[in-house]
Amino acid sequence: MNPNNTETNPPSAAEAAPAAAPLTDATHDPALRSWVASANVPGADFPIQNLPLGRFRPPADEGPGHADGADTLRVGVAIGDQVLDLKLAAQQCPWPEEIYPLLAPLAAGDLAAFMALGRPAWRALRAALSAALAEGSDQGPFLELCLRPRAGLRMAMPCTVRDYTDFYVGIHHATNIGRLLRPDNPLLPNYKWVPIGYHGRASSVGLGGPVRRPHGQQRPNPEAPPVYGPCQRLDYEMELALWVGVGNELGRPVPIEKAEEHLFGVSLLNDWSARDLQAWEYQPLGPFLAKSFATSVSPWVVSFEALAPFRRPLLRPGGDPAPLPYLHSAANHSHGSFSMTLEVWLQTAAMRSAGQGPVRLSQANAAEAAYWTPAQLLAHHTSNGCNLATGDLFGTGTLSGPGPGQGGSLMELSQGGREALQLPVGEQRRYLHDGDTVILRAFCEAPGAVRIGLGQLSGTVLPA
Amino acid sequence: MNPNNTETNPPSAAEAAPAAAPLTDATHDPALRSWVASANVPGADFPIQNLPLGRFRPPADEGPGHADGADTLRVGVAIGDQVLDLKLAAQQCPWPEEIYPLLAPLAAGDLAAFMALGRPAWRALRAALSAALAEGSDQGPFLELCLRPRAGLRMAMPCTVRDYTDFYVGIHHATNIGRLLRPDNPLLPNYKWVPIGYHGRASSVGLGGPVRRPHGQQRPNPEAPPVYGPCQRLDYEMELALWVGVGNELGRPVPIEKAEEHLFGVSLLNDWSARDLQAWEYQPLGPFLAKSFATSVSPWVVSFEALAPFRRPLLRPGGDPAPLPYLHSAANHSHGSFSMTLEVWLQTAAMRSAGQGPVRLSQANAAEAAYWTPAQLLAHHTSNGCNLATGDLFGTGTLSGPGPGQGGSLMELSQGGREALQLPVGEQRRYLHDGDTVILRAFCEAPGAVRIGLGQLSGTVLPA
Repeated sequence: MNPNNTETNPPSAAEAAPAAAPLTDATHDPALRSWVASANVPGADFPIQNLPLGRFRPPADEGPGHADGADTLRVGVAIGDQVLDLKLAAQQCPWPEEIYPLLAPLAAGDLAAFMALGRPAWRALRAALSAALAEGSDQGPFLELCLRPRAGLRMAMPCTVRDYTDFYVGIHHATNIGRLLRPDNPLLPNYKWVPIGYHGRASSVGLGGPVRRPHGQQRPNPEAPPVYGPCQRLDYEMELALWVGVGNELGRPVPIEKAEEHLFGVSLLNDWSARDLQAWEYQPLGPFLAKSFATSVSPWVVSFEALAPFRRPLLRPGGDPAPLPYLHSAANHSHGSFSMTLEVWLQTAAMRSAGQGPVRLSQANAAEAAYWTPAQLLAHHTSNGCNLATGDLFGTGTLSGPGPGQGGSLMELSQGGREALQLPVGEQRRYLHDGDTVILRAFCEAPGAVRIGLGQLSGTVLPA
Repeated sequence: MNPNNTETNPPSAAEAAPAAAPLTDATHDPALRSWVASANVPGADFPIQNLPLGRFRPPADEGPGHADGADTLRVGVAIGDQVLDLKLAAQQCPWPEEIYPLLAPLAAGDLAAFMALGRPAWRALRAALSAALAEGSDQGPFLELCLRPRAGLRMAMPCTVRDYTDFYVGIHHATNIGRLLRPDNPLLPNYKWVPIGYHGRASSVGLGGPVRRPHGQQRPNPEAPPVYGPCQRLDYEMELALWVGVGNELGRPVPIEKAEEHLFGVSLLNDWSARDLQAWEYQPLGPFLAKSFATSVSPWVVSFEALAPFRRPLLRPGGDPAPLPYLHSAANHSHGSFSMTLEVWLQTAAMRSAGQGPVRLSQANAAEAAYWTPAQLLAHHTSNGCNLATGDLFGTGTLSGPGPGQGGSLMELSQGGREALQLPVGEQRRYLHDGDTVILRAFCEAPGAVRIGLGQLSGTVLPA
């Protein structure tokens, strides 16, 4: 048996490493500008300091061999309002010799194969892309021919989702939900010790777009038998997606010091939730059909490298227990978290008809919301020997801030449906109506750093 | 909203279809004998009425192209103590013209592709195999050359597990476990309405063999902080595995009348469980690391066709609510369940040293144990539109009988660890020790039918 950690205070300041500065390199230089002009517009999601990867289907009119099908998928890099097509870029542009092996899987449309290569490869490609897309690059004239307007592209999933795990790192979310059920004791005793999570359904994870309101069993009247019918309390959950790049063997836990090396990057995730199905089904084994009808992710995967300027200390308020040793490292403690603004926007069908743009429902910051870091999630997940694989997906769980207007779900914003939200054209919402469009956005800002965005994730509710 | 079913009595006898007889055909004829002599031995698991499919690796000494790797896997049919190699059988034996397209994926080692073909294909192959392996078949002389001794074969997983779902259909198990937590009210109010289930971990599902005792977070002393260390309360769970053959589109629930058409067959499943990890982690989102270190299945998939003579009415004691309409069909009510004897055996390291064979810990019958049928599980799983795919795996949940000595887990047999089981060589068990070998067996017997077995699933606990 391993030694028992009985500390209740955070590790001393002496143990904590210096803050995020050493994580950054020339690719983060805020003075760096791209020859893709739209990447230099202040407030853009995809400046040259970001360089997220994603997959898309090339237009069908590009000739034979371009019909729909997995073999036609391309990998691209988002840059400003353009996408650099890495198949074309590998063919039509000279690259440093050592970059060709990294480009090969990407040119073949196989992002998963690149994800499996690990952080040194990811960093090397990032550096090469940064140099190639920078103002004054010799590669510019070649790569200009490899750009596609981002607006017109049909995006695809970054890779096949192998196993999907949804965590529960949002301590304010857990408190808000717990308070609805147990007003005097909202947080369960395990919460500050265990990064709570559960296995999710991989098959129904997809990109944004329409989401069909599910049917399901529910018991609206506790004095009457349950019924099967359309969900009456459909909700969203604002989460981040973490993509596993490098797996581990069954029976080989990944130590916390190495855990982040296995994580390829971050997207947005909407964990659509049928609250009435969930309330009736979830005891004693957890959420099941309340979640498995749809989970949406955004198509661009932002690397941990791009997020380096925004790293923050682990959230661990004074008096909270220190993480057990298998969940603690000095680096994780000093900059395991990151500062990221998270926003949820809503546009109803009536708002669309009235020409009214989306309204913001909530805003929170990931560093204030998440009690556990990505590295802790991965270390915990493998701590029993569970094997992860390339393409595994983690959801963080709903990321809500501590204050009003910071809840990452309608269940929180409406106090379990008791208080309706007022919308611009005279409507109210407790839960989602058919035709409602939910838009998640996330971006990082910090003094001396260029803003980095995850893009957005938009989904519209279709009738049951 | 669909009409609300408020019946509390089972459907009338008039509604119930006739019993299992029409399900059977010439392939079930108890007089049918095989030219493979060992298949005719009374009590064999794999008589000619069974014909389960599985995958194996051919011996490495069969020449070039036979090195390890997925492309070398073969599909075979277990018959007595032999296995018919379907790659050889497709090459070296004449078959009816219409069978070749069905044999093609099997000859290529791709059982999943055959599973995706659906019940008419499965039935047609079964009929062809039954005729070819029957005494007096013209194909016998060809197929004799395609047999391999089963004892020497290295088996492989039937297919890649896509999503894995574990249900909780064992009502006596749910009652037994519930009683340990809530003596006055063991069954939760949703149990008789909802086929409770949760998403499981697909990556750690494998065949039987050694299983490493996991480490994990646990709180043995509720007055002290939790610790991370080797599991102290390791358990097995006796379950059946159901393999999905034919999937469904996202958003398209499968009606109960069609549900069984999607299910390819049945294996044994051991849902290894770390009870101390589970007790500490499972609130509020269900089991996670307590399960994901290992799940074992047996390699031979027995078809629903082979089980036809053993079909039984749905278990629904008088006074229990009728299933909601989306979970009810006349056929499911009359023969949705099946009678199958389930046994758990244990051999400790000390027993092995003393030359003492395994001792039986429990015996139960699936028809008495399972409150929900395979068809109900599949209909429920898709009732929210969740998409299933070929290779999805369902665990039934622990199948325990109502009486003493019928618990399908040590947690039940030892009353939550309070009462030790006495073993033959003077040992006791509350939970599993290192070196313990757990053996699951299941077989069907009925008057006028030949015994059908699932084989066995054996796993030995390795030290943490």
